[in-house]
Amino acid sequence: MTKLNRQYFEALDNNDELAPMREKFCLEKGLIYLDGNSLGVLPKATASHISQVITQQWGEGLIRSWNTHQWMEKPTKLGDKVAQLIGSKKAQVLVCDTTSVNIFKLAAAAVKMRPGRSKLITEIGNFATDLYLLQGLAKLLGNQVEVIALPREQVLSAIDEDTALVLLTHVHFKTGAMWDMASVTQMTQKKGALVMWDLSHSVGAMPINLDEINVDLAVGCTYKYLNGGPGSPAFLYVAAQHQDLFEQPLTGWLGHAKPFDFEDDYQGAAGIQQAMCGTPPVLANAALEVALNLMLSVDMHLVRVKSQLMGNLFIQLIQQRCPQFEVESPTDDEQRGSHVSLAHTQGYAIMQALIARNIIGDFRAPKTLRFGFTPLYLRYVDLWDTVEALEDIMLQESWNQPEFLHRQAVT
Amino acid sequence: MTKLNRQYFEALDNNDELAPMREKFCLEKGLIYLDGNSLGVLPKATASHISQVITQQWGEGLIRSWNTHQWMEKPTKLGDKVAQLIGSKKAQVLVCDTTSVNIFKLAAAAVKMRPGRSKLITEIGNFATDLYLLQGLAKLLGNQVEVIALPREQVLSAIDEDTALVLLTHVHFKTGAMWDMASVTQMTQKKGALVMWDLSHSVGAMPINLDEINVDLAVGCTYKYLNGGPGSPAFLYVAAQHQDLFEQPLTGWLGHAKPFDFEDDYQGAAGIQQAMCGTPPVLANAALEVALNLMLSVDMHLVRVKSQLMGNLFIQLIQQRCPQFEVESPTDDEQRGSHVSLAHTQGYAIMQALIARNIIGDFRAPKTLRFGFTPLYLRYVDLWDTVEALEDIMLQESWNQPEFLHRQAVT
Repeated sequence: MTKLNRQYFEALDNNDELAPMREKFCLEKGLIYLDGNSLGVLPKATASHISQVITQQWGEGLIRSWNTHQWMEKPTKLGDKVAQLIGSKKAQVLVCDTTSVNIFKLAAAAVKMRPGRSKLITEIGNFATDLYLLQGLAKLLGNQVEVIALPREQVLSAIDEDTALVLLTHVHFKTGAMWDMASVTQMTQKKGALVMWDLSHSVGAMPINLDEINVDLAVGCTYKYLNGGPGSPAFLYVAAQHQDLFEQPLTGWLGHAKPFDFEDDYQGAAGIQQAMCGTPPVLANAALEVALNLMLSVDMHLVRVKSQLMGNLFIQLIQQRCPQFEVESPTDDEQRGSHVSLAHTQGYAIMQALIARNIIGDFRAPKTLRFGFTPLYLRYVDLWDTVEALEDIMLQESWNQPEFLHRQAVT
Repeated sequence: MTKLNRQYFEALDNNDELAPMREKFCLEKGLIYLDGNSLGVLPKATASHISQVITQQWGEGLIRSWNTHQWMEKPTKLGDKVAQLIGSKKAQVLVCDTTSVNIFKLAAAAVKMRPGRSKLITEIGNFATDLYLLQGLAKLLGNQVEVIALPREQVLSAIDEDTALVLLTHVHFKTGAMWDMASVTQMTQKKGALVMWDLSHSVGAMPINLDEINVDLAVGCTYKYLNGGPGSPAFLYVAAQHQDLFEQPLTGWLGHAKPFDFEDDYQGAAGIQQAMCGTPPVLANAALEVALNLMLSVDMHLVRVKSQLMGNLFIQLIQQRCPQFEVESPTDDEQRGSHVSLAHTQGYAIMQALIARNIIGDFRAPKTLRFGFTPLYLRYVDLWDTVEALEDIMLQESWNQPEFLHRQAVT
C-alpha cells in the first residue's frame, strides 16, 4: 500500500488536470467544503450574470425579455445542456419545477403508459420524496396502483409482469451505494415495465449514458454537483421513443401545443414540451445556466476518476487513523457514487466539532456522517486535512463515555 | 364632465399620496410601462439584496444558510406576508411552486374533500392554465369528476349539489372584468361546494378579504402586481377550517410532518405546511421578499382608488380621442380590475407601433390591447401621454385599409 502522507496528497494536487477549475468557484480561505453533494458551491461567474439578468433583462427589458432574451426557451435550452451531461440527445430533457413535482409527472405518465399493471416498485430508504410522491400518486388513483417498497436486495426479484414502473435513485443519498443502471434497466424492461432513475446524487459527478442504455425516464436535481444554487430548478428526461404516448397530468399552459392561443381545451405540445407546466423561474434558470456551462467545460470521465480516487483515499485514511467509524459506503469504487458515509453513534456531535474547525460535511439521522467529493473544487490535501482534524477530534473527546453522553443530553 | 388636459393629469400626480413610491422602482426615463399586470417592474432594492443572498448566504454560508438564513422557512414567512395582502390570518398561505402546480394541488384536495360530487365548474375563457389543470386532474381521475366550463353568465346557475369545486379568476386576464367574490363564494358554499379563487390579476392591485368572506381556497401569481420578478414563485391559500381535512397529492418531502427523519411513509405535516412539495427556490424567494416588503408599505385602499381612477380616466380619454377602439373592459370601476382592454382588428400592429414609441402594453389574440395600471409606479400623465400617442398612431396609419392589411400579411 502506498505510504500516505500530506506530501503524497500535495503531489496528487500538483498533477491534477482538474485543479485549475477550483479558481472558478468562490471558496473562503481555510474552508474545506465536503457538502457539495447537498448544496454545490457558488461559481464566481454567477453573481455578475444574475446581476445583469436582473438589471438589464428584467429591469430594462421588462416584458420584452421573454422574447429578446429567450426566457421562455430556457427550459429546453438548459435541458439540452443537462442532456449532454447524462448522455441524452437533444429534445429529451427539460429544466423545470422541482425533482418532487417531476417525479409525480413522470410516474403518472408511466402508469398511463402501462395500463393494467398495478405495481410501482421502489427501494425502502430511497430518498424520501421519491417514496412519498409515488405514495401520493397511488392514493390519488384509488387502488389502481400500489407502491411496493422493498429492501435493496429484494428489489430486482420483485419486478414482474404486473409492474408498471421501477423508480430508483442511481446513487443512494445516504450510503452512496450505486445501482448498476444498465443491468437494472434491462431487467426492468424485460418484464415490460418502465424504469425511472433519480439522478440527483450522480449527475455532475460521473458520466451517465441514458440513451446508450435505453433508459425510459429520469429526473434529477441541479443544486448538488451541478452548482445551480439553493433550490435551483430540477430536470426531467423522457426518452424520445416514449414521447408520443407520454401524457402527464400537470397540464399547465406551457405544456400546451399553442400556449398563447389561450384555447379552452388542453392539447399537449409535441415532444418533451408537454412535460412543462407553469411559467419558468427566470432568475433561477440564469444561475443554473452559468453552472451548467462550467460543468460542460470539463471531461466528466476525469471528474469520475478523481472522485473515485478521492473516495478510496478517504476510506483508506479513515480505516488507518479513525477506526472508530464504520464505513457505510461501498469500499469498491465501482459501486460507489461521489460521497462516503461513516457511521458513529455520536455522529451528530462529531460533525458539529468538524464544522467548528471549518470542515463542512453533513449528518443524516440516526448516525451517518456524509462527506461529499466534488472534483471541480476539492483538493486532495483537503482529504488529508479532514482526516487529520477528525483524528484529533476523536482524541480530544471521550465520544463513547457515559459522562460525554450525559453532557450532550443536557446541553 | 371635467375638462381633460395634461395639466389636469399633472395636478393629479402632484396630489398623489402614492407618487413617492415610483422612486422605489427602476424605470427607464421616457418609458411608459403599462404591462405591470403581466410582468411587474424591478424594485430598486432587489438587485443588491439578491447579490447579498448570492455572495454571502450561498457563497459564504453555503449549506449552513438553510438554518442561519431560514431558507427553509421562507415559504411560510413569505406566505404570511402575502396573507396580509389578501386578508388572511397567518398560517394559511404558502409561497411555493407555480400557480399551475398549486391549482392542481388544491383542486385535487377539493375533490377529496367533496366525495361523491362530480363537477368542477369554471368559466370558458378563464386563464388557460386554470382550465387545463382541471382537465388534467379530471383525466387522471378517470371519469370520477368532470370539468364544466361555461360562459361567464351561465356559471352561477350551474353550481349545484353535485358540484365539488368552483374555480374562477377574480379579475379576468383579458377583459379585466371582476367577479363579486363575496357573493359567488356564498352561492357556491350554499350548494355545499368549495370555491377556489385565482388572484393572479388582482393581488397587489386592490384590497382582498379572503377570511372575511369565508373563501375556501385560493392561488395567485407574484410576478404581476407584486413585482416578484419573472417566473417568481406562486402562492396558495387554504382556509384554516379546511386544513385538517386537506390532503393534496403532490406529497413531497417538505410537506411531511418530519422531513429530516426521512421516514419511508408519507405523513402530512399539520396545517398549511402539507401543501409544500419540493425544495424552495431560494434566489427567487429573496427577490419576492423585497417586493412584498415594498407592497406591504402602502395602503392597499389607496392603491385601489388610484387604480380605479386611472382606469376611468383612460377609458374617458379613449372614448373622446380614439373612438376606433371598442372598450372590452367594464366601464363600471366596481366591476373592473386594474387593467383596461381595448379591441381593434389591427390590435397587434397598433400595439407594436405604441411599443416603438416606448409605451409598453401587450396584445392578446385575436384583437385585444391590454393596458395595465400599476399605481405604485405609474403616473397620471402617463395615461395622457399614452392616449396622445395612440391618437397620433391612429392618424398616421390607415389601419383599416386593405393596402395596410396586405402589407402586414407579407411582412
